[in-house]
Amino acid sequence: MNHPHENHTPQGVTAAAGFRATGITAGLKASGTPDLALVVNDGPLKNAAAVFTTNRVAAAPIHWSRKVIADGRAEAVILNSGGANACTGVEGYANTQATAEATAGALGVDAADLLVCSTGLIGEQLPMDKIQAGITAACAALQAGAGHDGGADAATAIMTTDSVSKQAGFAATGYLIGGMAKGAGMLAPGLATMLVVITTDAELEAAELDAALRAATRVSFDRADSDGCMSTNDTVILMASGASGVRPDVTEFTEGLTGLCTDLARQLIADAEGAAHDISIRAFNAASEDDAEEVSRAVARSNLFKAAIFGQDPNWGRVLSAVGTTTAAFDPDELDVAINGIQVCRSGCIGDDRSLVDLSGRDVLVEINLHAGDAEATIWTNDLTHDYVHENSAYSS
Amino acid sequence: MNHPHENHTPQGVTAAAGFRATGITAGLKASGTPDLALVVNDGPLKNAAAVFTTNRVAAAPIHWSRKVIADGRAEAVILNSGGANACTGVEGYANTQATAEATAGALGVDAADLLVCSTGLIGEQLPMDKIQAGITAACAALQAGAGHDGGADAATAIMTTDSVSKQAGFAATGYLIGGMAKGAGMLAPGLATMLVVITTDAELEAAELDAALRAATRVSFDRADSDGCMSTNDTVILMASGASGVRPDVTEFTEGLTGLCTDLARQLIADAEGAAHDISIRAFNAASEDDAEEVSRAVARSNLFKAAIFGQDPNWGRVLSAVGTTTAAFDPDELDVAINGIQVCRSGCIGDDRSLVDLSGRDVLVEINLHAGDAEATIWTNDLTHDYVHENSAYSS
Repeated sequence: MNHPHENHTPQGVTAAAGFRATGITAGLKASGTPDLALVVNDGPLKNAAAVFTTNRVAAAPIHWSRKVIADGRAEAVILNSGGANACTGVEGYANTQATAEATAGALGVDAADLLVCSTGLIGEQLPMDKIQAGITAACAALQAGAGHDGGADAATAIMTTDSVSKQAGFAATGYLIGGMAKGAGMLAPGLATMLVVITTDAELEAAELDAALRAATRVSFDRADSDGCMSTNDTVILMASGASGVRPDVTEFTEGLTGLCTDLARQLIADAEGAAHDISIRAFNAASEDDAEEVSRAVARSNLFKAAIFGQDPNWGRVLSAVGTTTAAFDPDELDVAINGIQVCRSGCIGDDRSLVDLSGRDVLVEINLHAGDAEATIWTNDLTHDYVHENSAYSS
Repeated sequence: MNHPHENHTPQGVTAAAGFRATGITAGLKASGTPDLALVVNDGPLKNAAAVFTTNRVAAAPIHWSRKVIADGRAEAVILNSGGANACTGVEGYANTQATAEATAGALGVDAADLLVCSTGLIGEQLPMDKIQAGITAACAALQAGAGHDGGADAATAIMTTDSVSKQAGFAATGYLIGGMAKGAGMLAPGLATMLVVITTDAELEAAELDAALRAATRVSFDRADSDGCMSTNDTVILMASGASGVRPDVTEFTEGLTGLCTDLARQLIADAEGAAHDISIRAFNAASEDDAEEVSRAVARSNLFKAAIFGQDPNWGRVLSAVGTTTAAFDPDELDVAINGIQVCRSGCIGDDRSLVDLSGRDVLVEINLHAGDAEATIWTNDLTHDYVHENSAYSS
């Protein structure tokens, strides 16, 4: 399920001026669908920021890209699906470096300014002959002058188990932000691999981009928790070309970026593997935002709760069981829980008739009143379904 | 699947001298199967110890039994299936107290020495008329002089979604330990509710029982982690009658108790809801036992890993992804992983051919070499299956 965009804000990584992109088929995936994407910043600015998975078992492209972004500058991002290049040792790192060098060579830029992202199965070496040929094809496509409207192709080429491609856009006064995403998960932790590239033609320094990106991801991608599993490859990249000539108000930019990241995060959750319900878990009246997030995340990770929602069973006892495992401030005898507006638990005890709860729709809202303060946080997750088990047991991914 | 007992050690809560037990049908469960169990200690000693769920949302019988056990003395345990009596407020606590008082009255003992356990759906009041009638029937059955071989009936009456009843026994020089268990889970955390009652005719003080029980549960029930969910009702009780007249070596007793708890814990995992594989995850060469346990538990809680095992896919990348989320001491480039004896990951990189791994049997052993010390720990878990989703979505439990 995709979120409809009723306005006409340009979407994707080529929405903002100064960027070209393409997505081509290098033959990495058995399906024969596009699997190699390239996003190039034509400037004049080449400022960039990125956040990466906190998984200590990080893929080769994570190690490479961390070095690239250290100086706040990037010329381009090359992304492949069809292989994560994780747990691939020295050979894997050499393959990431070769990918960056081949792309940089074809573009006429420094390989040290080339970000690399990979997604797919862990523990297999990439077929570098196909990658090299794909890079040549992708760069040739861009150098012919095309690619100013290639964002959608790039968004398609990074898909793995995604059923739809994901793009978003935000238009401010005089500048644009656009982005693409793949996967169904988050930064820390993440289901499958999440890769996100966001571009803007605003004039911002690297440090400003970094601060805005961290503020935005903290309350968007970090709040999406589909199955509690953290990927080795999660990456969110933000690049600024400055091509609009507009220096934005940093607060407005951060708010716009946060909205765009939230849009993409919710698209990821809506397309999570095998999900039948999109569940928002909101803890409020918490002593702190951290408490609210801990409580919401504990519920989001309860397999018993998630299976109950799949079965359209408003089993609030499983919500309280999960809340009870946290260190958040609350009195068990004061907890209130509402599911889709029905107050099924009041003061830690039986509330309104649970049979009044309607779980037949796709969206589920669980609201937990901790009666301990005025902070809140929402985690977005999915139910645990037969299709989740099927997709994650029948295929290596 | 039950573990075969090839020897003829007496099993269950009436194996040891000085105990009587029964299990009857009070009509709490729609199925009409037995649902009320009573275990009585005839002494001469009435020493006891217990460990309870650490869930902060604890059921009424947990609050009651914590008070009862505080003085290290217990006359009997009354256990019901068919209702957890959790999130039931003041009325729920009064119902637990009434249960203890009715049982104590019929037995002619002090209600303050009556332990109470409940298991079933959270958030519903118990039908106290049925409970009261059931207590009368259970006590009458015991007072007729029967119950010395009632352990098996008691083990049956505490079952909920269990497919088989669970008993175990340990015979030492001159004394016995016996026990029963229900559920498929653990103390912290626990799937469904785990209730365990263990009896011994050894002569031991309450403080000795408490120390032995905590030592035993730490490496048995606490290492069983079927689905990462912690119950509101988990309880493990140990009672000593001293009827053998034998004062045991405390070390020998603790080892025997640990073996018995491990036996019961593995029976629980083997009967976990919907499981198709019993998985042992052993982390070794760890810097500390805590590190080893953290690593093993992280893998045991990865839905992606557990779904892969269900699909007979030796997806070692999902093992490493989970290990990478921990704080344990290790170098990602030194991790080795073997699945059922095949070294699929060597030095953090691709090892032997994963297609050599045979996952067609029920038992799976994952071994993770952290190369950081000489400590180890094993967590027992299950795979994530269609039947798990079905059992936990189709029925409230």
